Amino acid sequence: MSTKSDILVTLSLDEIPKKWYNIAADLKGLQPPLHPGTKEPVTAEDLAPVFTKSMIKQEMSTERYIDIPDEVRENYIRLNRPSSLQRAVYLEKYLKTPAKIYFKREDLSPVGSHKGNSALAQAYYCMKDGIHTITTETGAGQWGTALALASSIFDLDCTVFMVRISYDQKPFRRTIMQTYGAKVYASPSLHTEYGKKVLKEVPDSPGSLGMAISEAIEVAVGDPNIKYTLGSVSNGVMLHQTVIGLETIEQMKKAEIEPDYMVGCVGGGSNFSGFAFPMMREKMLGKTECEFIAAEPKAAASLSEGEYRYDFGDTACMTPLFKMYTLGHDFVPSPIHAGGLRYHGMSPLLSEAFNQGLLTARSYDQTATFEAGMIFAKAEGIIPAPESSHAIRAAIDLALEAKEKDEEKTIVFCLSGHGLLDLAGYERHISGNLVSSSRMS
Amino acid sequence: MSTKSDILVTLSLDEIPKKWYNIAADLKGLQPPLHPGTKEPVTAEDLAPVFTKSMIKQEMSTERYIDIPDEVRENYIRLNRPSSLQRAVYLEKYLKTPAKIYFKREDLSPVGSHKGNSALAQAYYCMKDGIHTITTETGAGQWGTALALASSIFDLDCTVFMVRISYDQKPFRRTIMQTYGAKVYASPSLHTEYGKKVLKEVPDSPGSLGMAISEAIEVAVGDPNIKYTLGSVSNGVMLHQTVIGLETIEQMKKAEIEPDYMVGCVGGGSNFSGFAFPMMREKMLGKTECEFIAAEPKAAASLSEGEYRYDFGDTACMTPLFKMYTLGHDFVPSPIHAGGLRYHGMSPLLSEAFNQGLLTARSYDQTATFEAGMIFAKAEGIIPAPESSHAIRAAIDLALEAKEKDEEKTIVFCLSGHGLLDLAGYERHISGNLVSSSRMS
Repeated sequence: MSTKSDILVTLSLDEIPKKWYNIAADLKGLQPPLHPGTKEPVTAEDLAPVFTKSMIKQEMSTERYIDIPDEVRENYIRLNRPSSLQRAVYLEKYLKTPAKIYFKREDLSPVGSHKGNSALAQAYYCMKDGIHTITTETGAGQWGTALALASSIFDLDCTVFMVRISYDQKPFRRTIMQTYGAKVYASPSLHTEYGKKVLKEVPDSPGSLGMAISEAIEVAVGDPNIKYTLGSVSNGVMLHQTVIGLETIEQMKKAEIEPDYMVGCVGGGSNFSGFAFPMMREKMLGKTECEFIAAEPKAAASLSEGEYRYDFGDTACMTPLFKMYTLGHDFVPSPIHAGGLRYHGMSPLLSEAFNQGLLTARSYDQTATFEAGMIFAKAEGIIPAPESSHAIRAAIDLALEAKEKDEEKTIVFCLSGHGLLDLAGYERHISGNLVSSSRMS
Repeated sequence: MSTKSDILVTLSLDEIPKKWYNIAADLKGLQPPLHPGTKEPVTAEDLAPVFTKSMIKQEMSTERYIDIPDEVRENYIRLNRPSSLQRAVYLEKYLKTPAKIYFKREDLSPVGSHKGNSALAQAYYCMKDGIHTITTETGAGQWGTALALASSIFDLDCTVFMVRISYDQKPFRRTIMQTYGAKVYASPSLHTEYGKKVLKEVPDSPGSLGMAISEAIEVAVGDPNIKYTLGSVSNGVMLHQTVIGLETIEQMKKAEIEPDYMVGCVGGGSNFSGFAFPMMREKMLGKTECEFIAAEPKAAASLSEGEYRYDFGDTACMTPLFKMYTLGHDFVPSPIHAGGLRYHGMSPLLSEAFNQGLLTARSYDQTATFEAGMIFAKAEGIIPAPESSHAIRAAIDLALEAKEKDEEKTIVFCLSGHGLLDLAGYERHISGNLVSSSRMS
């Protein structure tokens, strides 16, 4: 009989971290976001029409540790926090590798991914600040789903602008958002002036993330009791997601796991940063030799192929300018199944960490990631999200490298979410119809 | 901060039960299955061409406790056993009820429901008996999914005959089965003589569970190294599923929960029996006053509306005759979304328990169950399977009755699975297009 520490490292509810870790306290040389008109650093006043004041404060904070409010900690339980750290014994066997592989299970959240960790915090702060409605945009729907549940928990109205083509073609996450009580509009919509304008010009517009952001922001700007929220990229989101990495450190201590590699997928950076930043601090303090590896899609390889410069966060040039790795705000990633990684830029905090050499990046074609996802699903029984399969691909490659060199490496990766709402991609892979990223571009 | 015992009652891995409980030891007056030709009790020899010998032995056993093999226990971990018992504090608040409501979380299994508990056991016994391939039929796919993973775990080939209309219209569970490595045929198929015969007569046949059973059995009968497996109804399946109820008893002891009601959904009976039988023994021993309530669909209310008599287990009259509550083997339930409950009969063990008054039954229209599912999803954040929503409906009704009478009742129900692959039903409910069961029939 396998024992607990062989397979699963769990934490009790009172071991949910009490503070988030803010890497802004430890990263020297961070460049502030700039106002696109004046090119001066943006001020809290600039952001006030769009974001709630608690979030603006966090966005600009350089405090190292920030208290997780009790009401957020309590509700983390509903997202199945603390999440288990599980050893992938069956994957190890399948690969015949001397490496030990562990994965952090963000897939067990009822919203299906790690996105709830920040959604809960943002909804809480909006509630505390007296806001009654929060708005956001969503593509495939992971972030919208998380925010819909968080809004329901804190009794807020939630308005989600979902890119029309996803709204029509991928109705499942839309249904989940509605089940949680959110209003979901296909964007462009008749609900905003911007949407009306687009629809007048292009009545059958399929929409885009840029358009949906514009609509969500317009709604927020028009009413002081409505605020806009973001699912990735911003400093506040990276902060909230560190609950993942802080738990992981506790679990690794408990089970005496000393990682050689920590691996996560990157799109806007929220999953990787949340998972890796707390351990990166340990590295900055000289307490670990762990290497950090960001797995990105070839279709949007901002770290591997982008430039480190100021750019807009959105395609419609409505956001401040962020210093980040970017492929250019007008870059349109190929329509890979890992929709959550289709972003032209990268979290400014993670960008600076990359700039300082604290992590390396590897990029993958989607066919290679689906192969990895299939191997993992068959070995471990868990169907991973296409986004998470990027991390799995990197972890498998590291395990095979360890096998080649006969080294007992320890690899810890973050399973950011499950793939039960992404089975169309698996179906295409199984039937031989999955398109290589390179053939799409 | 909520404490562990407030919200979650967990068990450690070494608290996974070591034995299953066999209610056949405690139910007097059980009638054996009969050979349809001779009307004599079926013998092990009669069953040998179809089932593997370990399963036949369990089918006929009246031993009270049967050891769970170590390899099955170890692999229960992969199904997220032991599963948590969780308090539905948010549902209680929403209902403003003095009742305490707990639910057993079978939804966290990677196969999405409790079905893996028996699939793992059956695949294990086939492997031990030297069988190389297992076959089965599946409708919407819950059982096929569980068996596909179990086969992958024990290195068996798995052949699933999936009703053609589900194969075409609900491809998601098919994709999961294929991801786990199973061969999935749309039934009727050209893979069997029976299938060929049907297709010759009706080339565009949509298939049925009866046809799929016939194909799966034909494949098994034709090769001594291939055996057929069942996902519900049989004594062996009820036995394996008692791991749910045995864990629940441990958890209730730990948290000092004394249930007034235990509630589960019933179709063929595997979830309810697995959840309730161990506690029913406690009741037979006079150790609890708990009442047991089976929640069934009005569309197939075999306990509420059926007769207790001998009938075939399948529609094609190929199985033995079972003494059970039945609506008649030619009864065709309306196409409700809770496909797992669309069965004309009922587990013989559960039927006899019902006959002896050990449980009562309540039946629900599907609109009432989807309403309950929506309330639960919004309150607790977890989207339940349409099958499980029958148990939720009954639990909510009991909680409202307790509120009316101002009684502090304790209700424990089994959440048999999640609804992430059943979102089409939720979509119809939300858009006002869900059809009442009564209007379908």
